[in-house]
Amino acid sequence: MNILATGFMPFNNETINPSYEALKRLSQNWDPNKGKLTVIELPVSYEKAPRILIEHIQKLRPDYVICVGQAGSRQGITPEKIAVNWKEATIKDSEGYTAAGEKIRADGEDGLFTTLPIKEMVQKIKKRKIPASVSYSAGTYVCNTLMYCVLDWIRQNKEFSNIQAGFIHVPYLTEQILDKPGLPSLSLEQIIQGLEATFEVLNRQ
Amino acid sequence: MNILATGFMPFNNETINPSYEALKRLSQNWDPNKGKLTVIELPVSYEKAPRILIEHIQKLRPDYVICVGQAGSRQGITPEKIAVNWKEATIKDSEGYTAAGEKIRADGEDGLFTTLPIKEMVQKIKKRKIPASVSYSAGTYVCNTLMYCVLDWIRQNKEFSNIQAGFIHVPYLTEQILDKPGLPSLSLEQIIQGLEATFEVLNRQ
Amino acid sequence: MNILATGFMPFNNETINPSYEALKRLSQNWDPNKGKLTVIELPVSYEKAPRILIEHIQKLRPDYVICVGQAGSRQGITPEKIAVNWKEATIKDSEGYTAAGEKIRADGEDGLFTTLPIKEMVQKIKKRKIPASVSYSAGTYVCNTLMYCVLDWIRQNKEFSNIQAGFIHVPYLTEQILDKPGLPSLSLEQIIQGLEATFEVLNRQ
Amino acid sequence: MNILATGFMPFNNETINPSYEALKRLSQNWDPNKGKLTVIELPVSYEKAPRILIEHIQKLRPDYVICVGQAGSRQGITPEKIAVNWKEATIKDSEGYTAAGEKIRADGEDGLFTTLPIKEMVQKIKKRKIPASVSYSAGTYVCNTLMYCVLDWIRQNKEFSNIQAGFIHVPYLTEQILDKPGLPSLSLEQIIQGLEATFEVLNRQ
Repeated sequence: MNILATGFMPFNNETINPSYEALKRLSQNWDPNKGKLTVIELPVSYEKAPRILIEHIQKLRPDYVICVGQAGSRQGITPEKIAVNWKEATIKDSEGYTAAGEKIRADGEDGLFTTLPIKEMVQKIKKRKIPASVSYSAGTYVCNTLMYCVLDWIRQNKEFSNIQAGFIHVPYLTEQILDKPGLPSLSLEQIIQGLEATFEVLNRQ
Repeated sequence: MNILATGFMPFNNETINPSYEALKRLSQNWDPNKGKLTVIELPVSYEKAPRILIEHIQKLRPDYVICVGQAGSRQGITPEKIAVNWKEATIKDSEGYTAAGEKIRADGEDGLFTTLPIKEMVQKIKKRKIPASVSYSAGTYVCNTLMYCVLDWIRQNKEFSNIQAGFIHVPYLTEQILDKPGLPSLSLEQIIQGLEATFEVLNRQ
Repeated sequence: MNILATGFMPFNNETINPSYEALKRLSQNWDPNKGKLTVIELPVSYEKAPRILIEHIQKLRPDYVICVGQAGSRQGITPEKIAVNWKEATIKDSEGYTAAGEKIRADGEDGLFTTLPIKEMVQKIKKRKIPASVSYSAGTYVCNTLMYCVLDWIRQNKEFSNIQAGFIHVPYLTEQILDKPGLPSLSLEQIIQGLEATFEVLNRQ
Repeated sequence: MNILATGFMPFNNETINPSYEALKRLSQNWDPNKGKLTVIELPVSYEKAPRILIEHIQKLRPDYVICVGQAGSRQGITPEKIAVNWKEATIKDSEGYTAAGEKIRADGEDGLFTTLPIKEMVQKIKKRKIPASVSYSAGTYVCNTLMYCVLDWIRQNKEFSNIQAGFIHVPYLTEQILDKPGLPSLSLEQIIQGLEATFEVLNRQ
């Protein structure tokens, strides 16, 4: 089994991004008997994030592509069901680009379902006593664009069509919410545990 | 201009559904010089709601189909961007059916964008000092199924392909949240005003 | 029956304060057969608000003093049970004063209960289908200081000891939450209705 | 330094109470060089909880009494500023008693401030990257009654008047919110860390 997992760099005034922090730690303690795990850190850029990811897919030819990002106000680990062909956000991306509301691919389908076993992932996470649920919106910022682009690219490139891919949002780390009243969070250890649980579902030989 | 608008019957232990209440009142005060407005009340049924709506479309041949439903925890009026090819909910529909997680149409596309001018609708609503935003998830209950089915049917039936259709979620009425601490709501008058504002954007002769 | 009601001026970047707006409208439509209603607008000042109120109490010798203020994140109309002998807030008052955490009266009691029939008020408001509940914290900003000072002053001045006094917080107006996602609100009409309902409980001849 | 700390038994359909779980673990790893720490578990009873606590105070003659309880919807560790002379809740206590709205002590003061250094406690907790803030309402259930009774008893019994006492609310454990969408939580480790931080402020020889 060959897994390519991606996290993001910090964005929107944060100094840490739980997605990459957790994946980095997960890979440091990864048991190679379970397969190969490659973790990369992507810039929060509509254009660069998918481009860099696809370059790595072509090199590494993974069985699974698991993209992870931060969704600040969520309570639990939330695998995404669908990416939408739309980008729109008031905040800029890392290149200074503001998406005012436009299609990601002019002739692309409106929505693309994940090909990961997300229901099983949610069950595995909850078994570890960590909150989780399927999400039906990955937003319209870089996370959704990355998910859309990778699913679309796999569809377009038949040679890679057996790759299963998708996106998982994780909440803020507790240290990120000290001045954000009311928002939920998880500890880094809990996010690592939750992501590790999702990998248990993947078992292609 | 010929508008067909649908609201839902009450569900999930509620005795009122703001979607139909508001549309009914809107139609009672409708100025016929603006065009024709037909309002129907649909059962909260995965199967019946789309079937009854499509029968009315065939009879009335409207220019616009505006489906409205209640999304209890939302703050404002939220036109939906996309319907997904998925139904899943822990609560039953009006026929006693529980959707355990299945495609609405086995060979349908994963997601279908609304064809209504939802950004303009949001602007018009906010001009009336009523909270509004585009929503990127209509959920996976009957509301989403109705939206998916009508968009899919219009695509399949070329004769009707000039109909613009979509879905708008409205919050709880204030009277519905008396025992639901923390949840936002709008008054019936505000929901009527908000929906009326969305109709102002529609202007086909 | 002689009622003195107070609202506040706008604060913290708001351009309107629902407390005074609602009271002003209520007094404009007040039926004098119910008694005398005087409404005044107070500055959001730890020092001036109680001083001006007490001057008016001395002049008007009311039976009831109902102070009203805005508590932005609340869902309903919330009569306060207790004022605490503490002022502390990160935002300044209208005079530019920041309360860093100090007693309002060095030798005052820690807390003072309202003398208004707040449970009956809550019941009357809910009968009008408007959300309401007793609140057990009026915060530590000017609202609480005003409530503490008026209750303390009445206790100290035996001549006025038959005055019943207290504080009622009201939520944001809907127009105030257009750019505040998730927060609840009420329409001006609903806040007027809610405050009017609290006055129904007052019936001293 | 001699600390008496109390946690509660589980209540309201929960099978665990983070207050006692955390204190138990804290005491198991307690360094006796820091002083003596006694932890007891109290029933969620308006009558028994204060009675048992006061019996232990008389026996142990502690310098500090730190009562801890669960406040399910809170984000962080929240030391309480004030206890109010009021008990009222829709849920029963462990003895089946429902407090319909009544004074705790007929002739007691309306409110009583904690005598713990709660601001310093909040700072110490946040230094450990755990959310914390002063709370100005301990509610009107058993937690508040316990806090009120112990503060009142210390005031009445001059012999014990040098004891500093108060109450700290802690959020749900993460395992408690798996089926409570949106609510924040902390891990057991984080709650232990937070409570341990509050003890660092206590340093009486």
